[in-house]
Amino acid sequence: MKKLEDYVVSIPDYPEPGIIFRDVTSILQDAEGLKLAIDSLQAELDGLDFDVIAGTESRGFIFGMPIAYNLHKPFVLVRKKGKLPRETVSASYDLEYGSAEIEMHKDSIKPGQKVVLIDDLIATGGTIEAAAKLVESLGGEVVRIIFLMELAGLKGREKLKNYDVRSVIRYEGN
Amino acid sequence: MKKLEDYVVSIPDYPEPGIIFRDVTSILQDAEGLKLAIDSLQAELDGLDFDVIAGTESRGFIFGMPIAYNLHKPFVLVRKKGKLPRETVSASYDLEYGSAEIEMHKDSIKPGQKVVLIDDLIATGGTIEAAAKLVESLGGEVVRIIFLMELAGLKGREKLKNYDVRSVIRYEGN
Repeated sequence: MKKLEDYVVSIPDYPEPGIIFRDVTSILQDAEGLKLAIDSLQAELDGLDFDVIAGTESRGFIFGMPIAYNLHKPFVLVRKKGKLPRETVSASYDLEYGSAEIEMHKDSIKPGQKVVLIDDLIATGGTIEAAAKLVESLGGEVVRIIFLMELAGLKGREKLKNYDVRSVIRYEGN
Repeated sequence: MKKLEDYVVSIPDYPEPGIIFRDVTSILQDAEGLKLAIDSLQAELDGLDFDVIAGTESRGFIFGMPIAYNLHKPFVLVRKKGKLPRETVSASYDLEYGSAEIEMHKDSIKPGQKVVLIDDLIATGGTIEAAAKLVESLGGEVVRIIFLMELAGLKGREKLKNYDVRSVIRYEGN
């Protein structure tokens, strides 16, 4: 039987020399791969008590929405700046060169809500750390963070050491 | 019982004066709204024979993925230019000022496959028309196009008159 890893196409030297890009679209192009990806991620939430799933643009939407549907939870969008139409809170995070900003709607998390964060991949962890701060600024509690893939060599877990972080596939390099 | 329309927050004069923005994030923030949106969209595919669901960035991902999971189909991403890592085909479409380009992976659709296109909203229909052309350039057949919301006043259906177009909520204006 094919494992989830077998559906991932790895692209050397993309987007720049020395980087191996792990492509998730190749998983989704196969109905079995898609099901395995969602089921594996969802299994990381087994037995967890939580209220909301929040996903980061845009691959967090892809993996977060089926799980929200399956577990009958609301889904909250964490978007790049300027894309949400109602009143927002925002947080910035560092990129290799410069910085970027993400936003959430102010009313998307209610104080005391238990929030699961989801994204396709953890690299340095900067985006998800900023998302976690946004959730907390709205009074929410980040009870777990789940990723389909982890690039362990980039040490994103160190940045997220105060959180319960799970990943389905772990790559030792970057 | 609340209807799907009741979950949509309408924002007048956004993103510019005279436009009423129909916000889908307000649907997703409620577990019942989310379920109703997915179930209503999925019902538009009842009895249809098809192979693949393709969704346009990024709200097409949000609504397309749960349906792909539920119906055990592959999901293909139609993305803005420069975001897909492998070999692509691209098509451009007109915006109010200038134009934009979308891409799909070359291997994402196989010749003869029956494809469902999905997005959250049809306005002028330019993006989806470009996506349909991309599918056809890869040898696929667009067997249905589904939207959660339709802004009928913008006459997007005229641009898509050669396709089987369905929408769940219809707004008469723009």
